Amino acid sequence: MDQALHLARKAYQRGEIPVGALVLSPENKIVAQAFNQVEAHQNPLAHAEMIVLKKACLKVKSKRLMGYSLVVTLEPCPMCAAAAMHARIARIVFGAYDSKGGGIEHGARIFSHQQTMYHPEIIGGVREHACQKLLRNFFMNLR
Amino acid sequence: MDQALHLARKAYQRGEIPVGALVLSPENKIVAQAFNQVEAHQNPLAHAEMIVLKKACLKVKSKRLMGYSLVVTLEPCPMCAAAAMHARIARIVFGAYDSKGGGIEHGARIFSHQQTMYHPEIIGGVREHACQKLLRNFFMNLR
Repeated sequence: MDQALHLARKAYQRGEIPVGALVLSPENKIVAQAFNQVEAHQNPLAHAEMIVLKKACLKVKSKRLMGYSLVVTLEPCPMCAAAAMHARIARIVFGAYDSKGGGIEHGARIFSHQQTMYHPEIIGGVREHACQKLLRNFFMNLR
Repeated sequence: MDQALHLARKAYQRGEIPVGALVLSPENKIVAQAFNQVEAHQNPLAHAEMIVLKKACLKVKSKRLMGYSLVVTLEPCPMCAAAAMHARIARIVFGAYDSKGGGIEHGARIFSHQQTMYHPEIIGGVREHACQKLLRNFFMNLR
């Protein structure tokens, strides 16, 4: 999560909502890294998780990341959570909870609604305070 | 929807799950077109809707597609439905319903769970039979 926070700070410096993400192999090696780039590309789909999942699939040369983990500083939104499902990510580790935009513990609850068949391991609140503080500072400076 | 079906047939010919999508401007002009390319790129995020939304944002040079419509042959999955939400798509028109993978009328119900604030116009079942038949033929031939 330290490295994901480092990536989130890079996003912050570029005026992007500070979210960083990485994908770990089953051996816990970093396979891909990314930060949010929505503003840079004017692409609302360019969340850190989407970029890092695509990068990891390219690197592994597979559309499945079985046994891999996604580590991200903020609770993934429903788009990113469902993307992790499509990639068959085994574990999602996230920092800050997101009561408005989150799609795992909030809102669409991608992995816990009645029809879901896919249940990755979810570990939320890892370095929660540091991840949250970075986001809060960003939005405070926007005002 | 005829043009979306035409795109879906292109996917079919390439061995991709046959889904086609396009984005229409507020004046109902086609802004971008795409078909599913998950296999070609071994990228589980390369659904027709994701590609077409990205293309449309690039074309319009904006991360918001206010007033635009997404037309797609199959009920969007939660990833694609949430992507349309991030892009502020005004209307989603789809063909076949998807009781297993759909994220609008099924499963995560991206636009109708308790916490959602975003309610695009949804028109499902347009040329349902033709869209469904194409998908059914594809999966029959896979067996």
